[in-house]
Amino acid sequence: MPKLVVRAFAVSIDGFSAAPGQTLQAPFGKDGLRLMNWFFPTQFFKTMTRQPTAGETGLDNDMVTKAEHGIGATIMGRNMFGPERGPWANEDWKGWWGEEPPYHHPVFVLSHHAHSRFEMKGGTSFTFVNDGIESALKQAFEAAKGKDVRIGGGASTVRQYWKAGLIDELHLVQVPVLFGQGERVFEGLGGIEDKYEVAEFTPSKAVTHLRIVKKA
Amino acid sequence: MPKLVVRAFAVSIDGFSAAPGQTLQAPFGKDGLRLMNWFFPTQFFKTMTRQPTAGETGLDNDMVTKAEHGIGATIMGRNMFGPERGPWANEDWKGWWGEEPPYHHPVFVLSHHAHSRFEMKGGTSFTFVNDGIESALKQAFEAAKGKDVRIGGGASTVRQYWKAGLIDELHLVQVPVLFGQGERVFEGLGGIEDKYEVAEFTPSKAVTHLRIVKKA
Repeated sequence: MPKLVVRAFAVSIDGFSAAPGQTLQAPFGKDGLRLMNWFFPTQFFKTMTRQPTAGETGLDNDMVTKAEHGIGATIMGRNMFGPERGPWANEDWKGWWGEEPPYHHPVFVLSHHAHSRFEMKGGTSFTFVNDGIESALKQAFEAAKGKDVRIGGGASTVRQYWKAGLIDELHLVQVPVLFGQGERVFEGLGGIEDKYEVAEFTPSKAVTHLRIVKKA
Repeated sequence: MPKLVVRAFAVSIDGFSAAPGQTLQAPFGKDGLRLMNWFFPTQFFKTMTRQPTAGETGLDNDMVTKAEHGIGATIMGRNMFGPERGPWANEDWKGWWGEEPPYHHPVFVLSHHAHSRFEMKGGTSFTFVNDGIESALKQAFEAAKGKDVRIGGGASTVRQYWKAGLIDELHLVQVPVLFGQGERVFEGLGGIEDKYEVAEFTPSKAVTHLRIVKKA
């Protein structure tokens, strides 16, 4: 059975996945990119972004490489797609990721406002869903053709699916940075403790990887 | 200069230091004691509780042993002292820790309601402070006679001192358990990110130790 998963989702030690003040230049909010400082040196990231240097191997690289395996579609919230809020002024914005986004599969963006579907280089398409998280889930599983579906983020999107008990497995990465404020991952999730548990605790030199699964 | 510190303070991965439903039998709330499962096997805990078995040495034992060094007084919130709420019905309750509490120094309990000071075996005294956190701090530093003062907990007490910028250093222990709800450590702390930073990240086999310090 294909699963709904969260993979390599970075969270600050105080539970935030982004700082306040997202802009075009700061997709993770003000000083928010430090949440990804463990990720940028990896071989995986260097290859993905076609950098000439080889990058680091090791546990973090293994974990992020594994995180991409078997994913057939991604669901994301609108703020993960771009910095714009409210109705779409136009459809010029094509995401943060340049001409060839690193997805290479269908991406479903939750939005309250209609937006045309479009395709990018390398097999990534963006479809906008404005009739709820269940609809996005159904469309994503159909598009994934038997592979797993990943919730890409952000925090609010993860929370909605988690609270509804729809997520099968979460791989969170606790990063030793202090945000103080921002987008909370763990909010309004009372009750999940009865349905989910931490199955694996795998610290690296830089971060702590956690695998959270549905209880049997 | 003596410091105000938090030491070996356990937090669930979702940011709670206790589950809901604190009772006499459940000082950490319902199923809350699993937050301390990394601590109970240590040599430090076995010795403290006078168990005949030797206990485990290693990183966690080193960390909790070190956490006791140089502490001359402890400040705690009322819920850490006992399960009773509101005005004290009587003064029979002497804390969770039996005849000889593991403090061996003066303890200051924040409470809105007056309560007499009392002494226990082994050098621990309990003084109740109902005129604010600054007053407790002043009394604790005087009692500590040049040693450091520790905020023992719980979450609300840590938050009050942290938010006020009074804490010099926090040693938090992130424990891979999911609480879903309970007493939040990281709440209403917007702004601390400008004053504090993570200085050390030290994972053990079981938990992640974090040292958070004031920025220079």
